[in-house]
Amino acid sequence: MKIDKALEEQPAQKQVGRALNRLEARSKVTGRAEYIHNLVLPRMLYGKIFRSTMAHARIVSIDTSAAREMEGVFAVYTGEDIRKVIPEPYYGPAFHDQPILALDKVRYIGEPVAVVLAADPHIAEEATHLIMAEYEELPAVFNEVEAAQSDVLVHDFLRPAGTFPDLKHLAGRKGTNVALDFQLRRGDVEAAFASAAHVFDDTFTTQQVMHTPLEPMVSLAEPDMGTGMLTVHTASQSPSFVRIEIARLLGWDENRVRVKSALLGGGFGAKLYIKLEALVVALALLSRRNVKISLTMEEQFFTITKHATTFRMKTAVNEEGRITARKCEVWWNGGAYADIGPRVTQKSGFTASGPYDIENVWIDSYQVYTNLPPAGAFRGFGIPQMVWAYESHADMISRALRIDPLEFRRRNILREGRPHATGTPMHDAAIGLVLERVAQRMNWAAPFEHGTGTLRRGRGIGVGFKALVAPTTSMAMVSLAGDGSCTVYSSTVDMGQASETAIALMAGEVLGIPAERIRVMRPDTDVTPYDMATLGSRSTFHMGHAVRLAAEDVNRKLTELADELGVPAAPASRAGELLRRKYGMQAGNIVGIGSFIPPYKSPEHETGQSENITPNWMVGGCGVEVEVDTETGHFKLLRFEHVVDCGTPINPKVVDTQISGAAIMQLGISLFERMEFDEVGQLRNASFAEYKIPGIHDIPPVIGRETVDSVQSNGPFGAKGVGESSTFGVASAIAEAIEDAVGVRLKSLPLTPERVYRALCAARNEPLSEE
Amino acid sequence: MKIDKALEEQPAQKQVGRALNRLEARSKVTGRAEYIHNLVLPRMLYGKIFRSTMAHARIVSIDTSAAREMEGVFAVYTGEDIRKVIPEPYYGPAFHDQPILALDKVRYIGEPVAVVLAADPHIAEEATHLIMAEYEELPAVFNEVEAAQSDVLVHDFLRPAGTFPDLKHLAGRKGTNVALDFQLRRGDVEAAFASAAHVFDDTFTTQQVMHTPLEPMVSLAEPDMGTGMLTVHTASQSPSFVRIEIARLLGWDENRVRVKSALLGGGFGAKLYIKLEALVVALALLSRRNVKISLTMEEQFFTITKHATTFRMKTAVNEEGRITARKCEVWWNGGAYADIGPRVTQKSGFTASGPYDIENVWIDSYQVYTNLPPAGAFRGFGIPQMVWAYESHADMISRALRIDPLEFRRRNILREGRPHATGTPMHDAAIGLVLERVAQRMNWAAPFEHGTGTLRRGRGIGVGFKALVAPTTSMAMVSLAGDGSCTVYSSTVDMGQASETAIALMAGEVLGIPAERIRVMRPDTDVTPYDMATLGSRSTFHMGHAVRLAAEDVNRKLTELADELGVPAAPASRAGELLRRKYGMQAGNIVGIGSFIPPYKSPEHETGQSENITPNWMVGGCGVEVEVDTETGHFKLLRFEHVVDCGTPINPKVVDTQISGAAIMQLGISLFERMEFDEVGQLRNASFAEYKIPGIHDIPPVIGRETVDSVQSNGPFGAKGVGESSTFGVASAIAEAIEDAVGVRLKSLPLTPERVYRALCAARNEPLSEE
Repeated sequence: MKIDKALEEQPAQKQVGRALNRLEARSKVTGRAEYIHNLVLPRMLYGKIFRSTMAHARIVSIDTSAAREMEGVFAVYTGEDIRKVIPEPYYGPAFHDQPILALDKVRYIGEPVAVVLAADPHIAEEATHLIMAEYEELPAVFNEVEAAQSDVLVHDFLRPAGTFPDLKHLAGRKGTNVALDFQLRRGDVEAAFASAAHVFDDTFTTQQVMHTPLEPMVSLAEPDMGTGMLTVHTASQSPSFVRIEIARLLGWDENRVRVKSALLGGGFGAKLYIKLEALVVALALLSRRNVKISLTMEEQFFTITKHATTFRMKTAVNEEGRITARKCEVWWNGGAYADIGPRVTQKSGFTASGPYDIENVWIDSYQVYTNLPPAGAFRGFGIPQMVWAYESHADMISRALRIDPLEFRRRNILREGRPHATGTPMHDAAIGLVLERVAQRMNWAAPFEHGTGTLRRGRGIGVGFKALVAPTTSMAMVSLAGDGSCTVYSSTVDMGQASETAIALMAGEVLGIPAERIRVMRPDTDVTPYDMATLGSRSTFHMGHAVRLAAEDVNRKLTELADELGVPAAPASRAGELLRRKYGMQAGNIVGIGSFIPPYKSPEHETGQSENITPNWMVGGCGVEVEVDTETGHFKLLRFEHVVDCGTPINPKVVDTQISGAAIMQLGISLFERMEFDEVGQLRNASFAEYKIPGIHDIPPVIGRETVDSVQSNGPFGAKGVGESSTFGVASAIAEAIEDAVGVRLKSLPLTPERVYRALCAARNEPLSEE
Repeated sequence: MKIDKALEEQPAQKQVGRALNRLEARSKVTGRAEYIHNLVLPRMLYGKIFRSTMAHARIVSIDTSAAREMEGVFAVYTGEDIRKVIPEPYYGPAFHDQPILALDKVRYIGEPVAVVLAADPHIAEEATHLIMAEYEELPAVFNEVEAAQSDVLVHDFLRPAGTFPDLKHLAGRKGTNVALDFQLRRGDVEAAFASAAHVFDDTFTTQQVMHTPLEPMVSLAEPDMGTGMLTVHTASQSPSFVRIEIARLLGWDENRVRVKSALLGGGFGAKLYIKLEALVVALALLSRRNVKISLTMEEQFFTITKHATTFRMKTAVNEEGRITARKCEVWWNGGAYADIGPRVTQKSGFTASGPYDIENVWIDSYQVYTNLPPAGAFRGFGIPQMVWAYESHADMISRALRIDPLEFRRRNILREGRPHATGTPMHDAAIGLVLERVAQRMNWAAPFEHGTGTLRRGRGIGVGFKALVAPTTSMAMVSLAGDGSCTVYSSTVDMGQASETAIALMAGEVLGIPAERIRVMRPDTDVTPYDMATLGSRSTFHMGHAVRLAAEDVNRKLTELADELGVPAAPASRAGELLRRKYGMQAGNIVGIGSFIPPYKSPEHETGQSENITPNWMVGGCGVEVEVDTETGHFKLLRFEHVVDCGTPINPKVVDTQISGAAIMQLGISLFERMEFDEVGQLRNASFAEYKIPGIHDIPPVIGRETVDSVQSNGPFGAKGVGESSTFGVASAIAEAIEDAVGVRLKSLPLTPERVYRALCAARNEPLSEE
């Protein structure tokens, strides 16, 4: 209360650029923050999932009788039951290929096959062990390159979602595991290779990993038998999508489906589109009860993952060290269901040749079905896999040609105004500046001491860029109360990136109100207007614009009101004076609406390429210094530097933690995270005991970060996204630093000590010693 | 689902004028409708109120120790505790005169003095009996006419709310129980009386009654210690007001206070402004727990009531039977706290001279404090008390002058374009037509058989009118989804009047969508925009306009979108085609906003009168036929006819039930409802066992209703409100019918058989027989 009064008396101050703690910080540290996990409703049943033990098999029978008879079990449902409430129970954002519970066959180990409902979750869990499924095993396929040519078919035919015009031609296609093949052709690649001074041809791979949000997925369906309404409470990054997709599955009007999200304990792309939502909805309608499913950490591994990839890159270089042509073939291991994989294949595919100025480019990017857990969006939306390959290749070419890797990049990077491989001219993408700032922070020009003896040091740098997933839509509303306090309605999901604080700052900037007096409503499709989703660093740009427009709409209406009353215009903080004059009492509020879609066209809508493929580019660069033990292959990072171009930082405090957070996440993927499957497709390490993510001791002793001085000229307040940029270049810089230190090159992630050791042994022609 | 499909295929049909069942009917008949009474939150405490046993007394001490020590009691709080969280704990819509719990003194028997909180409401209830209050008794005053001149002062000084400029001059006024004295002067009344052919001077009284909503008041406060937010769930007719008033009391920004209402089990004006809300809020902040208080039916009598009135009316009539002057003095018994009484005094006061064309008018209308339970708004907002008097007087004058009462009214009523006492010219007020239709339904021109013997029949007619409480504001939003389904955001409270259905019909009319596909959101100040309140038949007119404007805004945006895309405009039901074209996918929604305030000025803003005192007039007329037992005074209604002018009926089915519902409610007040106080101000009949409201057997055998063929030209779709119009003329028509039957005139409500019997005895100069 005292704070409010003090704030009120301050003159309107600039909000954008304030280094502000998260507005919800107090609720988080006091344990009172709102999470779906804490939500308990009356008459609620808990669902526990019985999962497939076969990677690929026909379902012969499912015996649920023992489970049903267990005391305390309310019901057991299988895929056939789901059809009673959802006749066509196939969902997905790009393809409608995923059954809510397995139908006819199973396609990966861990696929949901049946669900037990009980008021006590422990009873439900126990009862799942009494379910017996009989399968007829089918041959399975796991590797993405093999699967692209295999006769073993994961799906009989392709089922693209009807809403995407660019995928329509795939409908009904048979006899292939390639869900989508994206192509980009520019110039004459063959001719360029024929006349090249040097040609480099390498293949890089990445492993399947999991998002590991510390809040596992959770959804709760609450049917209202009285009104015929249905509310889905879900830890989702895309509540607007969930509403539309659930309405589609049920054949209901959208306004009968309400989707509410809350704070998320991390998302990273895992909680997009439909995950548990369709399942809890079907179960709730079958049981006529409220139904909640909370996954365990283990179950998340069987739900959504990051694509493993194989990336073959062939590069032609001329005598001056300029890249003249590049041919990229990328195979994306999509697992058993497409999820958003086809979009990853396209959107990351078109940047596979890197932030380099190359006349001749050939890209093939394949989304491939396999009998593994599905892969979808993951912080970076496929870009980290691309950067890993193209920056590794840059370093390998530099070494081969004895050009300094910084210098090689300087010669080749895309400069302002030059066209990207898609033909899009580069604007507001500070690739060169980011690169130079990384080099400066690494003191690159100074002599570097590699050391002697068994501990050798090396260093590496890398740079990457990412387009926005475009065009997509965000809407926002701003409601100004008579006392000058303000509420913003936005469906952006705050999953730790402090979006609510950023939105408050941006609305406050326009209205001249301190962010602390602005409340940001959490996503609720009945309350907050449409937003495509919280993904791909799109919210600062898209929702930022929508919030800006909505707040400007409020200001415009205030001005109109003042004109109408024939009085001087008042700032938003004094709106009450105008309202009281208009209404004769303390009454009314002023509501502004903003709707934003960037004026750009997505390539798939027209020719396959477009001059305006993205409204902006996010750029990040990384520099590392490592120390490698030549005897064991163990190594550690001594220095970890990140520079990003995010335009104007809206909240510098949060930008800092976003840079470090994304970098450390990518560090884990670069060094040790890996889902390990055995030969029948069984995941062997689905727990934190065996699947390591970075801990505090894994963070390098020197960790630096910087935002370059730049402005995104078409961004809200000069800003653009920052949540993914510092993932770029981490893995390749470490691989380069290892080679710089000990002379061996790794081309597969993760970069484990064992792999370094094996490479050292191979390089010395030594047999592997027993450790 | 099948219904939806069928509807979708229908061509756009007219929605306004459809006789539709309530959209929420199914939820009500299946017991699943949403009421605050059913709401249970975690960690919730129930509050039970300890009330004053003195009508007027200084509080010497309150001993809560025994109650506090009772097992299961969480806490006991008194008025002094409230000050810890609300330093100035005085609330009220017109005056800030009512303490949340009594401070220093009590002003009526039943006033809240302390509250016990416990997890078990029965324990809380039991503990209230252990509280001991010591009082120093003060003289009390109960009658409104006496109190207006008494030295016994209920309040030391007046505390008008700062937000009403017209009440400011009252601030701090001392030495009076008259909270507000409204005056209207037109013409030269004294001269007209001096030259009158006939002068009539009579005094009429009405009794204090209670609203008796079958869902008693209930409020629940839910503080969120994490976010510093506060949610109030309350069965309120005015959620927007509650938010502003609670924020004022706490000194918080409005956007930290959320007020959610639900369906109401009746309101009738009882659930307006602050009732339990400030109390549960204070208790929740003190206890840091969720706190719920549900009143018993008995407690409602101690919370809010309808004003008892004394109305002295003096009328001058010329030789032609035309009224030439009228002097009205009205005393409103406001009870111990003003609530909205001052507004009732003004808004009903200015129509006290009736729907008659009178050159010279003098009105004094006094809001008077007494030591009785507070009185506030009650279906009709004071008009039924006025109509009772002026229509009784019309009948008495007709009898005295031997003019048929229909004919007398025909000679005097306000015709189209003629100025009302305030100077406002009458438009779209079908007073004459309503009167004629009543007469026709009563077959007035035909000879009437009064009967002989001990059962005599009589008949009466009456007509009344009511202005809107103006100017007031309503806002609405309409959100159209891509599939053509629609959600309307409105803070109008559906308390049984089927406002949600009316809103859906009006939005559907504009959008060309069936009402069944439109969802109307319930009031929630975080979600639905500002609305002044649901009262005084204002919603159809004000919210109707706001909804119309919001839906038109959607249509306008659809047209703009089509223009932008260069395609033909699509109706709202096919908005999805435009959105898909714009966004490349099923995305977005279209949000329209409507804000309405009628272009009228309230009289208090300027000279005390205004040409535009109301945006429209609601008109109702009544005809009754009674049969009276001359030996006992018992009588029964044989016929009960009602005609109203509500403009175009939005939903004829609901208009019918509104007409009958209001008429029957007024019948109860006319015939038997009465709060009976003993000499120390103790209510003696605070239960349905002793306080009779109309039951099914009280409904007359012939009950007719009709809406005249009229259009409210400035109304939404030609409509205006209808919830109160059929209360007009009921009481006076019965009194006239009794006189018509047996020759005695009653001038006090209720019209009990005992009073008829006493009057018969007095008329015959007989002593009262022992019954």
